[in-house]
Amino acid sequence: MGRVTVRRAVERVSPSGRRRRVDSLAAEEPLELRVNGKALAVTMRTPGHDVELAHGFLLSEGVIGASEDISIARFCEGTGPDGMNTYNVLDIALAEGVPPPDTGVERNFYTTSSCGVCGKGALDAVKLKTRYSPALDEVKVTPEALTGFPDALRERQKVFESTGGLHAAGLFVDGELLVVREDVGRHNAVDKVLGWAVLQNLVPLRGAVLMVSGRASFELVQKAAMSGIPVLAAVSAPSSLAVELAEEQGMTLVGFLRGDSMNIYTGGERVVETA
Amino acid sequence: MGRVTVRRAVERVSPSGRRRRVDSLAAEEPLELRVNGKALAVTMRTPGHDVELAHGFLLSEGVIGASEDISIARFCEGTGPDGMNTYNVLDIALAEGVPPPDTGVERNFYTTSSCGVCGKGALDAVKLKTRYSPALDEVKVTPEALTGFPDALRERQKVFESTGGLHAAGLFVDGELLVVREDVGRHNAVDKVLGWAVLQNLVPLRGAVLMVSGRASFELVQKAAMSGIPVLAAVSAPSSLAVELAEEQGMTLVGFLRGDSMNIYTGGERVVETA
Repeated sequence: MGRVTVRRAVERVSPSGRRRRVDSLAAEEPLELRVNGKALAVTMRTPGHDVELAHGFLLSEGVIGASEDISIARFCEGTGPDGMNTYNVLDIALAEGVPPPDTGVERNFYTTSSCGVCGKGALDAVKLKTRYSPALDEVKVTPEALTGFPDALRERQKVFESTGGLHAAGLFVDGELLVVREDVGRHNAVDKVLGWAVLQNLVPLRGAVLMVSGRASFELVQKAAMSGIPVLAAVSAPSSLAVELAEEQGMTLVGFLRGDSMNIYTGGERVVETA
Repeated sequence: MGRVTVRRAVERVSPSGRRRRVDSLAAEEPLELRVNGKALAVTMRTPGHDVELAHGFLLSEGVIGASEDISIARFCEGTGPDGMNTYNVLDIALAEGVPPPDTGVERNFYTTSSCGVCGKGALDAVKLKTRYSPALDEVKVTPEALTGFPDALRERQKVFESTGGLHAAGLFVDGELLVVREDVGRHNAVDKVLGWAVLQNLVPLRGAVLMVSGRASFELVQKAAMSGIPVLAAVSAPSSLAVELAEEQGMTLVGFLRGDSMNIYTGGERVVETA
């Protein structure tokens, strides 16, 4: 447990021959999240910052809105052989009065959807769950600030440097990089960042820019929207449903943020020459 | 439904100014898989090749071993408004005598695990479920053949070309690229490839190389192992648990396959100068 990287022998093959060396790999382990003792989800994640991950995940799912909605988070003992603690099972006790989540596979989609499982249903589900709509956040950010974010994020990606195997997410407020988290799963990296913010009592994240190292999916826009984040910026492409959700939630979605240029998909009014 | 790309107005921002243009986005929509009418999973995927996706997913999960284990796959009608078919709910009827899967969140992990939810438990679960162990497959592949695969894959990535937003997976046998699938989710791209192979009655995929455009996670190695694929090659880094699973399953795992070089993490005996 708790290992972020693992050292391992590897054979490097190139035209100049084969040679053995030792390489660092990004650690991956399953984490089971339980709520009030009941299994909710299993995710493959890089160990570390697991309590943050749980807070961010439950915020994204609309189960909690602030740190006081959780009374305690603890790793379950006795889940390993000989009763050892594997640190891979985390039980979250919700505060009194906080309703536990549904646990069915359909929970994100059609409990309230007008059209069953479809893009529209997914958008509706987020709309219903959002406590912190980013739509009215009038923060401005300059193109110059945005184009500096990928390098700022990369400089803090310590584990990526050694493994090349991790996604990263970072949170910028007033141009300052508050926190960076890395994980083999990009949704986990974002959950860890959001969970950090929950624990710092910074949610809703007014005026914040969430920067991710890869692509922008529906799920990442959902996580930002659930946290009240007005601007999501990604190094790579967004999906169609990511753009639709950003538009419906009144968010700014920036993609292909590389070098000195970017694409703005929605909410261009927040990107102005002088902030 | 069925849209692989979506056209959308975007604002391009660079030092030379801002201009509007039309961009292509990778389509993303939820797909609910049902087995014998019961919801099993919801995945965010790029529409298209959904029946393949379902076959590949169920093969990966150990529910089916061949195409005859499924009697019929059909999109559910009446799931949309006014009873329309959204083509986002796919029901799989298993053949008589094929046991349906468990549907709990813990199904992949600790039904049989010796240590609860942990890396070892995840490895054990795959070991128990595998019908087509790749361990005894003595196929050989040359470094020259391997280094040609990323370009061969990229040439067939039609949608990536236009959107930059899709993962790809391809299947090579005897150096020939049999099939390529693209998806916003890398596990979906692999499931579509494996499902294609199920429907072609090519499983177990003896002598095959599965090539993926991104990183190699535990989940992707699991999918390859469940299909009897002896070699998994990835453009980027593997995770620690991916390497452990490949080793335990007797698979060859190649990472950082770029230009004329690569890293071999396990099963180096299959990579030889003359095949």
